[in-house]
Amino acid sequence: MKIASLDHGGLDGRLIVVSDNLQTYRCCTDETLQAALDLERLVPEFEGFPFDAVYCGAPLPRAFQFLDGSAYVNHVDLVRRARGAEMPARFWSDPLMYQGLSVFAGPGDDIGGRAEWGVDFEAEVAVVTGAVHQGVSADEAAGFIEYIMLLNDISLRNLIPDELSKGFGFVHSKPISACSPVAVTPDDLPGWDGRKLHGVLNVDLNGEPFGRADAGVDMTFDFGDLIAHAAKTRALPAGTVIGSGTVSNRDPDGGPGQPVAQGGRGYSCIAEQRMVETILSGAPETPFLQTGDHVRIWMEDADGQSIFGAIEQTVRLDP
Amino acid sequence: MKIASLDHGGLDGRLIVVSDNLQTYRCCTDETLQAALDLERLVPEFEGFPFDAVYCGAPLPRAFQFLDGSAYVNHVDLVRRARGAEMPARFWSDPLMYQGLSVFAGPGDDIGGRAEWGVDFEAEVAVVTGAVHQGVSADEAAGFIEYIMLLNDISLRNLIPDELSKGFGFVHSKPISACSPVAVTPDDLPGWDGRKLHGVLNVDLNGEPFGRADAGVDMTFDFGDLIAHAAKTRALPAGTVIGSGTVSNRDPDGGPGQPVAQGGRGYSCIAEQRMVETILSGAPETPFLQTGDHVRIWMEDADGQSIFGAIEQTVRLDP
Repeated sequence: MKIASLDHGGLDGRLIVVSDNLQTYRCCTDETLQAALDLERLVPEFEGFPFDAVYCGAPLPRAFQFLDGSAYVNHVDLVRRARGAEMPARFWSDPLMYQGLSVFAGPGDDIGGRAEWGVDFEAEVAVVTGAVHQGVSADEAAGFIEYIMLLNDISLRNLIPDELSKGFGFVHSKPISACSPVAVTPDDLPGWDGRKLHGVLNVDLNGEPFGRADAGVDMTFDFGDLIAHAAKTRALPAGTVIGSGTVSNRDPDGGPGQPVAQGGRGYSCIAEQRMVETILSGAPETPFLQTGDHVRIWMEDADGQSIFGAIEQTVRLDP
Repeated sequence: MKIASLDHGGLDGRLIVVSDNLQTYRCCTDETLQAALDLERLVPEFEGFPFDAVYCGAPLPRAFQFLDGSAYVNHVDLVRRARGAEMPARFWSDPLMYQGLSVFAGPGDDIGGRAEWGVDFEAEVAVVTGAVHQGVSADEAAGFIEYIMLLNDISLRNLIPDELSKGFGFVHSKPISACSPVAVTPDDLPGWDGRKLHGVLNVDLNGEPFGRADAGVDMTFDFGDLIAHAAKTRALPAGTVIGSGTVSNRDPDGGPGQPVAQGGRGYSCIAEQRMVETILSGAPETPFLQTGDHVRIWMEDADGQSIFGAIEQTVRLDP
């Protein structure tokens, strides 16, 4: 089943069920996704309206919790090297995770901020859980995944070093993230193996291919691991969003990855590209996002059909 | 106005308006506090039911965001010294703030966890905001405070050093916090000066006075400062909870504070008492919370009337 939330009918949107090909939608008995998750039900009522992602907010516009992992440790390694910080070896066995802002922008909302903050995108996979008990095992945890979606986790690169040095995690440097218009149940999701999503996560920047990483490759911690980590000392309320962190592939030779234009899988954020530029030429060349830039993030099934619809955001920074 | 949420009628409770003396309550047009905040209204409907905090959950059982500051920098200094970490001087001018779990326990819920985690309480003041625009100034911010309440921010001391060393803030080491049964609007709150709350925050441990710190003293960053800090790069949704961090007073001589039994203002968490014991005798003596311990947190007006009702929690740790 594919669901979305129309961007009207209240701050939490209006829950709809979308056809597999994203052409039509049906309304539901429950008004919001949170209500359906709380009641553990989702009953479509009517049939046959044409679907257009432009009228969608995030599937779960206001969640009670967003815990974002860094499951693709290659990304962590690259970004830390980019800011001159060493990565501890235990990051390969102990997941990094922070608590983020759990109010989500719609797939077409503008990216704001200030140029001097170093605004960057991060293309991720995220899951929405049901109510999870404290101490769940990684094996059990996968059974609590209700929906999978895509996420653009905006990062303010120039604010991160100072904020993280205070030791309390991200607040300023992780503003509002955007979600794909559609979230999909595990049973209807091509490439879903029960704990991770396989397939190419497409990222275009200004109409050019920027990232073509495979979300099923180099994911050191799968969603079972991430949910179990999140629930070690707390129960997770229904509607908790767990993010994968920036999807990132190593090169087959173990190198940091090549741009798409050079036949590589590219990058799911600008920071990685800048890191590789620094390695190759001593300094980064690609700027962070500027007003007018356009970011597009999506996945396709084997027939080229969009699975989640696209996150398509334009950058409009404060002067 | 004083409000509370009865612990029935759904996961978000049933909103009521409580009389000033906490003796009776009235029901409201809006079923939940979140609905009232979203609609910017609160209209009591019926009169005359006897009020008993034992039937209350947290006033806002599930919030979309909880940002907890460390406004009493004396506490930060003491706790860091207790774990052998130096405090940077900028912590006196740049607020520490982390994003915490925004699902809240009721005032009478048990404190769980494992003894080896080093379970501690932290008595705090917290505010619930309306919708706040990004970039609000500290002066403007106070106008967005809708309710004030008390909070017991449970901290797992033995998990903190390892977790914070990863740089992504608290996840495991800050499990579910509990709220006072009642939240009070600024206009009806004795001791509220518009940006901070003056008066003694009482903490009893097992029936003995443990903390009598004044919440209006040594608060380096007031709630205007904390909200402005929180909203630097994000808008805050209606129902955002902003915490003060552990209330903590210095001694008049600048020392770390004396126990209540020795005529001092005591401590709002066990970690501070352990730190002072370490200074005095070379090692901490007071253990962290054990099964059967009882924590009581409350404030009184000039007539000895409880303002928010009491947080009264019993500790039941896993074996």
